[in-house]
Amino acid sequence: MAIEVFWGSGSPFAWRVLLMLEIKRVGYESRLIEFSKQQHKAPEFLALNPRGKVPVMRDGDYVLSESLAIMAYLERQFPEPALFGRSAEETGRIWKSLSDGFSYVEPLMARIIGPVFFGGVAEKADDIRAAADGVRTELGTLNGTLGRQPWLAGGAMSAADIALYPWVELLLRAAGREAAAPLDLGLLPFDSRFPALQAWRGKFRALPGYDRTYPPHWRAAA
Amino acid sequence: MAIEVFWGSGSPFAWRVLLMLEIKRVGYESRLIEFSKQQHKAPEFLALNPRGKVPVMRDGDYVLSESLAIMAYLERQFPEPALFGRSAEETGRIWKSLSDGFSYVEPLMARIIGPVFFGGVAEKADDIRAAADGVRTELGTLNGTLGRQPWLAGGAMSAADIALYPWVELLLRAAGREAAAPLDLGLLPFDSRFPALQAWRGKFRALPGYDRTYPPHWRAAA
Repeated sequence: MAIEVFWGSGSPFAWRVLLMLEIKRVGYESRLIEFSKQQHKAPEFLALNPRGKVPVMRDGDYVLSESLAIMAYLERQFPEPALFGRSAEETGRIWKSLSDGFSYVEPLMARIIGPVFFGGVAEKADDIRAAADGVRTELGTLNGTLGRQPWLAGGAMSAADIALYPWVELLLRAAGREAAAPLDLGLLPFDSRFPALQAWRGKFRALPGYDRTYPPHWRAAA
Repeated sequence: MAIEVFWGSGSPFAWRVLLMLEIKRVGYESRLIEFSKQQHKAPEFLALNPRGKVPVMRDGDYVLSESLAIMAYLERQFPEPALFGRSAEETGRIWKSLSDGFSYVEPLMARIIGPVFFGGVAEKADDIRAAADGVRTELGTLNGTLGRQPWLAGGAMSAADIALYPWVELLLRAAGREAAAPLDLGLLPFDSRFPALQAWRGKFRALPGYDRTYPPHWRAAA
């Protein structure tokens, strides 16, 4: 029986798992959870993940939530291409980049993305501007890294790239919203401010299977 | 040349790395950074980690920061005892528990620990109480897990236990402080509220080498 993936349109955490499965060319059954219908709070879903969050993966009797845990599981089940490193040094660099993401970069991005999509931009303007300063610094560092090497942790695409990519897309979607216009986030035009990151985005969009991972409601709205 | 570990007394992130080295029985050179002397902001240290945070590990020419990255590196270099799982299923469960820690449990704990140690308890009392509600729920779940199995991710100690343990100690240190007394955090007495977690703490204290990892300034103050 194929692996089932329970995901939600636009969840950066869920998007990671879909990308990883496509990159490893692992077939999977897509189970799209509709947040607008509160399906993530339904008893059937809470039985899989009591936190009510996507992604959740089911492989036979084995159920797992949390995106990085699912990615670590998939790496062990489907080792090629290696996305968590082939040596201790590579593995260390990849987890360093992943940890930079979840400890510093993504929390800053969330302080912009949350108010833009869910309201509160005016009340939180000072905090959003402070977060945007931090985001620009972090993106500048990442852009520098990608100017020196093709992927975040070295010469090969890794879990670090896959984990960050959906956050960058989500941030740029927020930055382009009307609600963000008064904030002067200093992120756009992205291709001239962060050209190496822009080229890196292009490599993701060229991946086979990428279209199957793209948030369906983003396409509908475009 | 031995691995060097730059750490700071009381940093839960640094404590993890020391515990992992002791459990794997890997010799290391201890480099204690004194926060009170701003050594983590000194140019020599910022050259190792521009974020100015401990832990940092140096193994020959290879320098790595971020505790989970260092732990993943050490696992590859020193595979025994395995702390990130021997199968895909174990690895998934371990990273699930680690992710629960850094995504949910530790951020809640930090909202209590920060004000108690660094001030602001009165102004932040409402937020601290809300965080304490969340912490009790999370500790209840963990206590239940440890009632069913000896370690957080199953039958063997893993990186998930090692990553969480210093946070529990830090939380209890905060909960016992005079500044925390008016808050009624509902965490003490810990051994009657969370007996399985209390037994789990005891297993850490019994580890060979544990004393070398214990924050020296905690001992001095005791």
